Amino acid sequence: MNKHAKSVLPEGAKARQVYLSLRDQISDGRFQDGQTLPGEQKLSEVFGVSRVTVRRALDALAASGLIIRRAGSGTTVSTAGQLDKPVAMNLATLMPQLVEMGQSTTARLLSFSYDAAPDFVASALGLPSDEQVQIATRVRSTNQTPFSHLTTYVPAEIARNYSENDLATTPLFKLLERGGVQIKDAHQSVSATLAGPEVADALDVAVGSALLSLRRVVKDVDGNGVEYLAGLYRPDMFRLEMPLTRVGDGNARHWEPAIGKTHEEGA
Amino acid sequence: MNKHAKSVLPEGAKARQVYLSLRDQISDGRFQDGQTLPGEQKLSEVFGVSRVTVRRALDALAASGLIIRRAGSGTTVSTAGQLDKPVAMNLATLMPQLVEMGQSTTARLLSFSYDAAPDFVASALGLPSDEQVQIATRVRSTNQTPFSHLTTYVPAEIARNYSENDLATTPLFKLLERGGVQIKDAHQSVSATLAGPEVADALDVAVGSALLSLRRVVKDVDGNGVEYLAGLYRPDMFRLEMPLTRVGDGNARHWEPAIGKTHEEGA
Repeated sequence: MNKHAKSVLPEGAKARQVYLSLRDQISDGRFQDGQTLPGEQKLSEVFGVSRVTVRRALDALAASGLIIRRAGSGTTVSTAGQLDKPVAMNLATLMPQLVEMGQSTTARLLSFSYDAAPDFVASALGLPSDEQVQIATRVRSTNQTPFSHLTTYVPAEIARNYSENDLATTPLFKLLERGGVQIKDAHQSVSATLAGPEVADALDVAVGSALLSLRRVVKDVDGNGVEYLAGLYRPDMFRLEMPLTRVGDGNARHWEPAIGKTHEEGA
Repeated sequence: MNKHAKSVLPEGAKARQVYLSLRDQISDGRFQDGQTLPGEQKLSEVFGVSRVTVRRALDALAASGLIIRRAGSGTTVSTAGQLDKPVAMNLATLMPQLVEMGQSTTARLLSFSYDAAPDFVASALGLPSDEQVQIATRVRSTNQTPFSHLTTYVPAEIARNYSENDLATTPLFKLLERGGVQIKDAHQSVSATLAGPEVADALDVAVGSALLSLRRVVKDVDGNGVEYLAGLYRPDMFRLEMPLTRVGDGNARHWEPAIGKTHEEGA
């Protein structure tokens, strides 16, 4: 059973507007946990919309688990457990945690093909235009709830070292390293986007829901691009956690990522 | 003049769906830069919607700068300049870059008040429930285009060291350090959300647009919470950039944040 409320957006621009406004007021503490919301009549006056519209917005808030409606006693805000639900991804231990997750999560391979690299992939990986790449799309779930939609692009000659079945069961970076690729560094860019119909369906959210978007370009010791990852994550299921530490003095004082552990074992 | 296209979402669930689907196909390279899109009739058949709906979706794509429509020659994809537009925020040099930006960007103070800390702020900063905090909301712009909506919560006794006017002109962390606060570390959590009506208005985007959401809890050398930041960023204007490096051996091999520069000057 899916214990996470599905992200729900009401139909209609006005209901959407009321929904997002109330959701913001709940999430920034103007309406606190346990507080009673104004009645439908009052809300319809405040927002200048019909009661039908208010009701549609409240339906979506209830379906999102942000309010509880009880006959007679009105509508109360319920944020308990909303804030610490998501799976955390610690930047300092990014991959080990994904491996760990690989053991407690399931991946579903949606597609696996060889095709010409799209322009942005070719340029990011430093490949000739139209170079063949292996393109795979996977959805990762925990407790039957999908949380990430990952599309990876790997130069065809490297991808020959793994099969469709390998990719369905093993994290890609493990397959790359198993095939002899010496991964050196990566560059990540994090942004936000809206769920289109295909991704919304795969992640079990409403079309137009907010998603965390991560693009990663991975390079080997020779500076060759070996993987391009376009990842989309449900924000109710997944957050990027980053500890920072303040270093330097005077005008040079600034933030740096805090590195939790050092792993120096082995040679 | 605003040279960045305003983020536009078409009215109506179906037009929205067509818009987001085409946008995804452009951004993942299924429709590439310069390619001609199918005609309106063809698109209306593919999506099973009316031509009016297709036209509304295409209007939004054109307003977002993703396609160009020319009478007679059809509609072509135009992604030139779309991908490297946003202001990059490098995690390793986070604050210096913000200071730099502070010189070339403008901040507008939307509100400044003292109030009881919302539950999530009190618990994150380790304050007694209902402790007074200074709450300020600022919008930061570059070239007249707003890119961030920042709400900060600072314990009242610390906030007495700066005025409303100080905050309108000087980055908060500078004011804190000027007031004698010894900032030690911070924890950031990055996610995504949808723009509600107030934020959409302040950031000049459509209600329901995707925003990058950043929450930062800052602590001093004694472990006391000194600032809670809730930041919302336009993804077309702002991205979080993170260089990573692969370290360790064997099973302990993992990613760590790469730190670009070391600043050790001064004592």
